[in-house]
Amino acid sequence: MKPLEPYDSDNIFTKIIDGSIPCHKIYEDAATFAFMDIMPRGTGHCLVVPKTGARSILDVKKEVFADVMETARLVSKAAMTAFDADGITLQQFSEPAGGQVVFHIHVHIIPRFDGVKMLPHTGKMEDPDILKTNAEKLRRVLAQ
Amino acid sequence: MKPLEPYDSDNIFTKIIDGSIPCHKIYEDAATFAFMDIMPRGTGHCLVVPKTGARSILDVKKEVFADVMETARLVSKAAMTAFDADGITLQQFSEPAGGQVVFHIHVHIIPRFDGVKMLPHTGKMEDPDILKTNAEKLRRVLAQ
Repeated sequence: MKPLEPYDSDNIFTKIIDGSIPCHKIYEDAATFAFMDIMPRGTGHCLVVPKTGARSILDVKKEVFADVMETARLVSKAAMTAFDADGITLQQFSEPAGGQVVFHIHVHIIPRFDGVKMLPHTGKMEDPDILKTNAEKLRRVLAQ
Repeated sequence: MKPLEPYDSDNIFTKIIDGSIPCHKIYEDAATFAFMDIMPRGTGHCLVVPKTGARSILDVKKEVFADVMETARLVSKAAMTAFDADGITLQQFSEPAGGQVVFHIHVHIIPRFDGVKMLPHTGKMEDPDILKTNAEKLRRVLAQ
């Protein structure tokens, strides 16, 4: 394998996890943290990250990745209910060539709706009130 | 959650797993099976499925999903070496709205290369000799 950059804890997701940057949080347990994507590619688009540092699927430890994917599974099911969705698209990008932009491993959970295409990456920030409302919908289902 | 169709074992992936339909296999363990996607969206595009039946992330059991994702992690790392790739894109589609076409849960592993976009879904079958060669490359790394 080509040499990879080492994990750098100076990234936006570690600041979201430690609370120094605000987010619309939806879930947290001992190993994982989930919050709304502020540039959603669809209604309810959210992210799951591990609390421990790893760059991507290429350096993450087996147990850490398992924890992240288990939270992704639970959040996916919750998103179907919270948004009355018709499907889910999961994406996980590793390295710039793979589509990765923030170098702390994360999984995208994108609720999908019949006849609605995924939005392109525009870099446009979502209205914070919409993110807040969608985070509340997810939290409510996850708390059941 | 909207009611989901039940899992139907009459699908192409169960036939690939039981050998009644041929595939370019790359990996198998007690719980999972991996093989080349015959309509790849990039060099080395492959799939991981569980041997037990589940439709999607919405009905799969926790342990089965964990096994699938662990194999996906191992195959992702192997693909970086096998194809001298620059990154990996993982995709998992649930339900038609989410992009799912075959209703036996599966994870797409797409090796990525700097400056190379993912191919669109064209429905074009890849040359079997290329699939064979790429499967061999992956098997060789996974056997190390």
